[in-house]
Amino acid sequence: MQTVTLLVEGMSCGHCVNSVEGAVNKLGVSSKVDLSGGSVTVDFNESKVSLDAIKKAIEDQGYDVV
Amino acid sequence: MQTVTLLVEGMSCGHCVNSVEGAVNKLGVSSKVDLSGGSVTVDFNESKVSLDAIKKAIEDQGYDVV
Repeated sequence: MQTVTLLVEGMSCGHCVNSVEGAVNKLGVSSKVDLSGGSVTVDFNESKVSLDAIKKAIEDQGYDVV
Repeated sequence: MQTVTLLVEGMSCGHCVNSVEGAVNKLGVSSKVDLSGGSVTVDFNESKVSLDAIKKAIEDQGYDVV
């Protein structure tokens, strides 16, 4: 397992939190959004899902991973 | 028909727009959110729905009508 905190721009409200967490969850990855800090911390098994795939899932929701 | 523009606090993103417009739409009221201006303009038939009911629908989504 690996824990990575990504900086994500554009998350502004609880709906955004749900969008990001839901998208990441679909990959079987647990996550925690820090809305005020603009970050998403993900716990994932790198043998099952890549960090790039997680970043893409977040970006596909309309947010920028910086 | 009556057109009223309400000032609404707390709308921050497209999800919020969808929440507010969706809630108002359920009352049979068409609406347009101005996200940057923080306002919602509603067109409604005052013989069918009250302005108070519209305000309540917005507030029930978690926003403040000021």
